[in-house]
Amino acid sequence: MEKVPEPTLRRLPWYLSVCRLLKQRGEQYVSSTRLSKETNIVASQIAKDLSCVNIVGRTRVGYDIDNLLEVLENFLGFTRIHKAFLFGAGRLGSALLNDTGLKQFGLEVVAAFDTSPRIIGHNVAGIPVYHINELEAKMRRHNVKIGILTVPIDRAQEVADKMVVWGIKAIWNFTPLRIKVPENIVVQNTSLYAHLSLMFNRLEGLEGEPATNDI
Amino acid sequence: MEKVPEPTLRRLPWYLSVCRLLKQRGEQYVSSTRLSKETNIVASQIAKDLSCVNIVGRTRVGYDIDNLLEVLENFLGFTRIHKAFLFGAGRLGSALLNDTGLKQFGLEVVAAFDTSPRIIGHNVAGIPVYHINELEAKMRRHNVKIGILTVPIDRAQEVADKMVVWGIKAIWNFTPLRIKVPENIVVQNTSLYAHLSLMFNRLEGLEGEPATNDI
Repeated sequence: MEKVPEPTLRRLPWYLSVCRLLKQRGEQYVSSTRLSKETNIVASQIAKDLSCVNIVGRTRVGYDIDNLLEVLENFLGFTRIHKAFLFGAGRLGSALLNDTGLKQFGLEVVAAFDTSPRIIGHNVAGIPVYHINELEAKMRRHNVKIGILTVPIDRAQEVADKMVVWGIKAIWNFTPLRIKVPENIVVQNTSLYAHLSLMFNRLEGLEGEPATNDI
Repeated sequence: MEKVPEPTLRRLPWYLSVCRLLKQRGEQYVSSTRLSKETNIVASQIAKDLSCVNIVGRTRVGYDIDNLLEVLENFLGFTRIHKAFLFGAGRLGSALLNDTGLKQFGLEVVAAFDTSPRIIGHNVAGIPVYHINELEAKMRRHNVKIGILTVPIDRAQEVADKMVVWGIKAIWNFTPLRIKVPENIVVQNTSLYAHLSLMFNRLEGLEGEPATNDI
């Protein structure tokens, strides 16, 4: 399979959600016209996107929903469990530890790290919290490639550096700081606060502006 | 002030974070070269972005950090409290209610809505949970324009419709579903699971691929 372009990658989860919904409602097939209606993405683009993951619809019948679900969930990585460590079990970190939805999408947090004596040695949502100095030992025990970064910004770069040193390959960065990592490390930024400011800004510019519906 | 382009809007929070960090370290001025080093954004772009919010640096001195902080926090909407309702106090919803960081960035959740008798009438992180049927009454009491959508996907569109009917103007959509709203409603999508799949995909394509550092 050729490399799937990033815009396509960003749209695939939308199609997956619609298929899940339609399956819940007992439907068996979905046309690209229907997918288009549900996602506001033009049908020809949808057909192109799905052909990237080798899904082809049948004339007059459309796509087989079970098949779409299987291929998309598998392609998006949601059917395999990826182990992760979480760094910074403060407000946002604890919130994520409590979000069991992540596991349903293939991410299992197996341990958390912090520096606060108040929390080290305890469990958050059943997940043990260790001192960051124990990272090396825990890395050797678990096969973990993903680190979730939820520390305060003044610790973000330092903790990211530690992750990289001990073998983390992908960092899910929830801090509003742009961390610096070597070229071979994947960084996925998810700054809730950046999204919040986009929303505030759009809300204030509402008068006369069209709605924006952006990932 | 002219309308700030969206790519600029997406970069401004990065500059804000660096400034907060430098202020914590007792620094007073920051050059665009320094900002560039900390954010991996070219200095000329930074100067352009900051001029969009009427910030101009001084030759050889750079930008005054206190001034940058004030203008950026104000422009990004973090200095004003925006009231919000949260819809769906399940896993992710409760996690967000527990994230007191949101308030520091200008978002105050004043009430949550759900349909589960197990949770209605209770507080989550000090925030009362009401039945969704009480939305109309609560909208009349509070001046709320923002709704956070964290319901399961099979309820997402229906709850979004209710929000719009009762006067919500901006929806922060955490569901992986692309909701349909009238043109004058702002939708900010933050799908953690879509970001997760992007990260999985990059991680699997790691060999020989350059690092991606995307918002």
